[in-house]
Amino acid sequence: MNKTKPVILVTNDDGINAPGLRALISAMRQLGDVLVVAPDKPMSAMGHAVTITAPLRMLLIKDEPGYREYSCNGTPADCVKLGQKVVLGKAPDMIVSGINHGSNSAINIVYSGTMAAVLEGAIENIPSIGFSLTDYAYTANFLHCEPFILKIGRNVLDKGLPAYTCLNVNIPALNGSPVKGIKIVRQAHAYWDEKYEHRKDPQNRDYFWLTGIFKSLDDGEDTDEWALLNNYVSVVPVHFDLTSHKTIPLLRDWEKED
Amino acid sequence: MNKTKPVILVTNDDGINAPGLRALISAMRQLGDVLVVAPDKPMSAMGHAVTITAPLRMLLIKDEPGYREYSCNGTPADCVKLGQKVVLGKAPDMIVSGINHGSNSAINIVYSGTMAAVLEGAIENIPSIGFSLTDYAYTANFLHCEPFILKIGRNVLDKGLPAYTCLNVNIPALNGSPVKGIKIVRQAHAYWDEKYEHRKDPQNRDYFWLTGIFKSLDDGEDTDEWALLNNYVSVVPVHFDLTSHKTIPLLRDWEKED
Repeated sequence: MNKTKPVILVTNDDGINAPGLRALISAMRQLGDVLVVAPDKPMSAMGHAVTITAPLRMLLIKDEPGYREYSCNGTPADCVKLGQKVVLGKAPDMIVSGINHGSNSAINIVYSGTMAAVLEGAIENIPSIGFSLTDYAYTANFLHCEPFILKIGRNVLDKGLPAYTCLNVNIPALNGSPVKGIKIVRQAHAYWDEKYEHRKDPQNRDYFWLTGIFKSLDDGEDTDEWALLNNYVSVVPVHFDLTSHKTIPLLRDWEKED
Repeated sequence: MNKTKPVILVTNDDGINAPGLRALISAMRQLGDVLVVAPDKPMSAMGHAVTITAPLRMLLIKDEPGYREYSCNGTPADCVKLGQKVVLGKAPDMIVSGINHGSNSAINIVYSGTMAAVLEGAIENIPSIGFSLTDYAYTANFLHCEPFILKIGRNVLDKGLPAYTCLNVNIPALNGSPVKGIKIVRQAHAYWDEKYEHRKDPQNRDYFWLTGIFKSLDDGEDTDEWALLNNYVSVVPVHFDLTSHKTIPLLRDWEKED
């Protein structure tokens, strides 16, 4: 690849054929040399799964100056690892994942394969960004995303990110009015109010389908949910320290012998 | 189930037959009525995967007074959801996951199916604990774990946990000297220095196996890694807010129009 341009590793969790990935590739090719390693099938809600008990394979699909594309039988996190360790043999200048078909705001980050790939970048201290559109449709319109993706991508390439920190970017679906701009916000507190639909298969055996309604527990005006509801692009800086630091002193007396 | 006793939901990610699960069940039956819903096969390194595109099934394996056991074709997070929503129809008093065959300290929490089940409990605001032993062997010795599991389990049942907070408990493998006690600590900063072994299959096609060496980037004496290396049980309070709050003001000027 051309040494004067930044090298950008691109992946997603909706799979190599997803229109959201194509939109992200198109934006990234304006910013640098691009290596795509993406799952050969949809991998939504895979969380931070990593393949350790099965062999991983990659298939080279395209090889042009400044652009290579592989499909992979692994998860998004596997794709990021393979892209670095096997294809590039070094860290890329930036890792991007998406554009996810559907929101990864609030608690969705925990379940997201898109963001697992991005966290994998942060763990390796590579500037990394996840992009998601709040529209689950396969035929979603990604056209309005590009200026925001280019702006945030350029910022990250030019200014970097704090060590071991990545970005969770969610873009509102087009709703008739223009997106107002970017808000730097925190992850909203929300959950999925879930139910299982109980069905019988043709052999009369029980099975269950997960269904759920997203519910916010947070009326702050500094959250990703607030930004998206108000037609802003939400940018949440994300790290991988899950410690509830404020809880540590509260449990200190558990250290005592009985 | 007996209404006077607490109801405890038990799962794991090594699968329903794992000796670590049996050790945890044995401890939990001393504390309350127990419902086990565990994966029908090993689900290690599954992260927070949730099954949304396939039907879930459960198989009732045992049904005794105060004890029920189901195997499930889903992930640990699926098991926790099904246990609550389908089997119990309400929140249990406590959710426990493990005993994992292998450490979930430091960065391992991100990849861990054991801890995904526990985070799922925290998201629902149910007191939840993950237990792991720093020994990957199927034949690991879990006997010394029980007093610590009972002490921490009793503390959580009696005193509860702060809202939306769970515990990541790691227990050192027996190494000849007794475990010294419990330390309330933070998640150490560490990573896996990973390589892929490149092999050829009998059809001469390439494939890759993930291998890695755990590396600490943290010499703090207040971390889970420090506690384990010094033969203490590590207890990290965990939440699911991944926001790097200190980064928000640093990015504020990205909100400006160009």
